[in-house]
Amino acid sequence: MTTPPLHPSLSSLSFLLGIWRGTGKGKYPSIEDFEYGEEISFSHVGKPFLIYTQRSWDLQNHNGLHIESGYLRPVGNHRAELVLSQPTGITEMHEGEIISTKVEFSTLEVSCTPSAKQVSSVKRILEVTGKTLNYNVAIEAVGYPLLPHLTSQLVLS
Amino acid sequence: MTTPPLHPSLSSLSFLLGIWRGTGKGKYPSIEDFEYGEEISFSHVGKPFLIYTQRSWDLQNHNGLHIESGYLRPVGNHRAELVLSQPTGITEMHEGEIISTKVEFSTLEVSCTPSAKQVSSVKRILEVTGKTLNYNVAIEAVGYPLLPHLTSQLVLS
Repeated sequence: MTTPPLHPSLSSLSFLLGIWRGTGKGKYPSIEDFEYGEEISFSHVGKPFLIYTQRSWDLQNHNGLHIESGYLRPVGNHRAELVLSQPTGITEMHEGEIISTKVEFSTLEVSCTPSAKQVSSVKRILEVTGKTLNYNVAIEAVGYPLLPHLTSQLVLS
Repeated sequence: MTTPPLHPSLSSLSFLLGIWRGTGKGKYPSIEDFEYGEEISFSHVGKPFLIYTQRSWDLQNHNGLHIESGYLRPVGNHRAELVLSQPTGITEMHEGEIISTKVEFSTLEVSCTPSAKQVSSVKRILEVTGKTLNYNVAIEAVGYPLLPHLTSQLVLS
């Protein structure tokens, strides 16, 4: 299997391509602060979207904490849509603005299965500065307003 | 990395575990009939959900046709929730009933990004009979009612 050429529509998102690893910090009023290891991958198959996968783990015992997966697709001029799902029973749909090496997403829709914790909005920002991918996630959940939840700094592995 | 033991809550879904490969047929009033190769994987990481990934390809030139990914999580007595996303800009959320080696899903929600083809409902059925995983997908989309769309027969690879 050879990797096909990058679809031309992905040129404005190509700065995300690769496997990024590092550490992050999490907080929210309903939980204890925590730190985690994280790996994020953006890959492609020659089609006009990036494949997104994420996993995080406990830095002490290396147990898995969270995973999610989805797709980032460019739509028109410096904009992209992100869809993803989480094993916690959540799907997300966002529209993002691509500004140089930053993508700032606004929630189109967050849906929760009946058994999931209720999350009503998620704000995700991806930004590469120098060699670091900064990933910030704020959430509006379980009765609290939109508040910072996750921030991680990752480098290409 | 060793595979952790299967989470006890997954016992009723363990019949799906593995990588399944085979072929399928697709149809819908808005498109030409087609055939495809397909690979579906259900895996686990020791937590109370299965990881679902799917890819299909053109049988003639082996070009990729479709991929999707998500999670299947048991909820209570012989029921499971399925969440997934597609690079076509679609997220799906289903609740399923587990009857022996069959899971029949009903749509809780299908969401489409502004740039996606509009799909309003998806009916997915997974059933293992003998050594074959039969995967059937019906969709209600682009103005048509719920109609059969995909049917594939896959075996463990």
